[in-house]
Amino acid sequence: MRLATVRTSEGTRAARRDGDSYVLLPHANVGDLLNSGDDWARTAVTAGTERVDAAKATHAPVVPHPNKIICLGLNYATHIKEMGRETPRFPTLFAKYDGSLIGAGDPVTLPTVSDTVDWEAELAVVIGQAARHVSKADALDHVAGYTVSNDVTVREYQRRTREFLAGKTFEATTPLGPELVTADEFGGQEPDLEIRCEVDGEVMQLSRTSDLLFGVADIVSYISDIITLLPGDVILSGTPGGVGDGRDPKVYLKEGQILTTVIEGLGETRNVCVHEMRD
Amino acid sequence: MRLATVRTSEGTRAARRDGDSYVLLPHANVGDLLNSGDDWARTAVTAGTERVDAAKATHAPVVPHPNKIICLGLNYATHIKEMGRETPRFPTLFAKYDGSLIGAGDPVTLPTVSDTVDWEAELAVVIGQAARHVSKADALDHVAGYTVSNDVTVREYQRRTREFLAGKTFEATTPLGPELVTADEFGGQEPDLEIRCEVDGEVMQLSRTSDLLFGVADIVSYISDIITLLPGDVILSGTPGGVGDGRDPKVYLKEGQILTTVIEGLGETRNVCVHEMRD
Repeated sequence: MRLATVRTSEGTRAARRDGDSYVLLPHANVGDLLNSGDDWARTAVTAGTERVDAAKATHAPVVPHPNKIICLGLNYATHIKEMGRETPRFPTLFAKYDGSLIGAGDPVTLPTVSDTVDWEAELAVVIGQAARHVSKADALDHVAGYTVSNDVTVREYQRRTREFLAGKTFEATTPLGPELVTADEFGGQEPDLEIRCEVDGEVMQLSRTSDLLFGVADIVSYISDIITLLPGDVILSGTPGGVGDGRDPKVYLKEGQILTTVIEGLGETRNVCVHEMRD
Repeated sequence: MRLATVRTSEGTRAARRDGDSYVLLPHANVGDLLNSGDDWARTAVTAGTERVDAAKATHAPVVPHPNKIICLGLNYATHIKEMGRETPRFPTLFAKYDGSLIGAGDPVTLPTVSDTVDWEAELAVVIGQAARHVSKADALDHVAGYTVSNDVTVREYQRRTREFLAGKTFEATTPLGPELVTADEFGGQEPDLEIRCEVDGEVMQLSRTSDLLFGVADIVSYISDIITLLPGDVILSGTPGGVGDGRDPKVYLKEGQILTTVIEGLGETRNVCVHEMRD
């Protein structure tokens, strides 16, 4: 099943993909659907009658207001090497706030305070059932599904201090979507999918999600020993090698460039880079 | 004005302190009040008739579900020195999630996975009006007020990777409250208040909030260039010297100990340390 949060003239609505259309669900977004109860998947299959043309739909972030956005750093060997870091023994966790999220077709905001904006294609994991102290063996049962993201990063702010957060949570920079593909589509296994990032059609990152150092079950289990994961929580699982900052010379995103992030079977985000407007 | 989120038999309620009582407001908590509109302060003064005895009230986190909890690291010279760090040129920002928050009298949860739990008394700043690209001169106009917090930290998890987050966001560890004292009580100035942390009555940290390296206006202005601050957002402004981890030998919190965090004029949190119960 494929779920989306689509924009309508009366605000956003959760929707189920059905061929060329979306069937609008009673919930304002996929986060509300996931929080509607343990039977959210049955609700998503059975509810709704109103349809919109999928080709004309515009997408909000698939979960616009997660309780938590938890990001993994240094989780592909190729990216660890290009950033000159050691291979970590434990998952490196940092946060983003929901004000950084954008829809799959929305512009990426290039801030006025720095021009060191870089791409990081990532597989996003969305939680479907609360998870607290879950074993690695049980962890995937708590995953609603997967979607596409790009952990767009302002490198100068990432490096100003010893903490990544400032560079990772700039306003309106992080696409999430277009669709949540539910975990049952992967037969209860960790997804092994090609992940690719392009800037103006040039392939910058190309890897497979099976190359994650800490896999999805590892990550969910680890976090659940720290804090309860809630339905709708989003985990960005880390990025493979090929970021602009790891190149010689370094390359950053420029006004008007198109940032495309594609994960096999999940879909793509396509975001034009636009400078922030200030009064 | 002093505001609190108190627990009632029908759930939590925002409340205004009036002498020995709390006047219950229509909002479920202080976060909802702050998000009710720009005239939240007038609402808080005029609304409500039902009273409860303040001495018998129990407090939820004063803002139980902030959109953002943003923490400052390394923001008092004495703490920078004891942790062996350099004085930072920019505010060091990291996050907590709301699942880490507890009320002013609630137990601090000592997790099963590590016994390296440490205290960090902090002045908490609560946002009252959205702030985006605000100057330092205007920043305090966006502050609703101040309260008491303790950025309780699991040192082992803080140090496992290069990012603090994991050690900072353990479930049910971070008191926030009991009361939000509105900014007008400080005449539009940065608060210059004694801040103290005690463990079983022994003073472990003692400083003044005027010793902050980056003051409240600096912090609010800086963050607002990264992302929009929203009403109810909470900023923990950093901790002074005297943490357990900076001692020789190191000292950590133990079952049954009482952690008391006091800020002059704001009040105190008093939290017993209790090991997490697991099935």
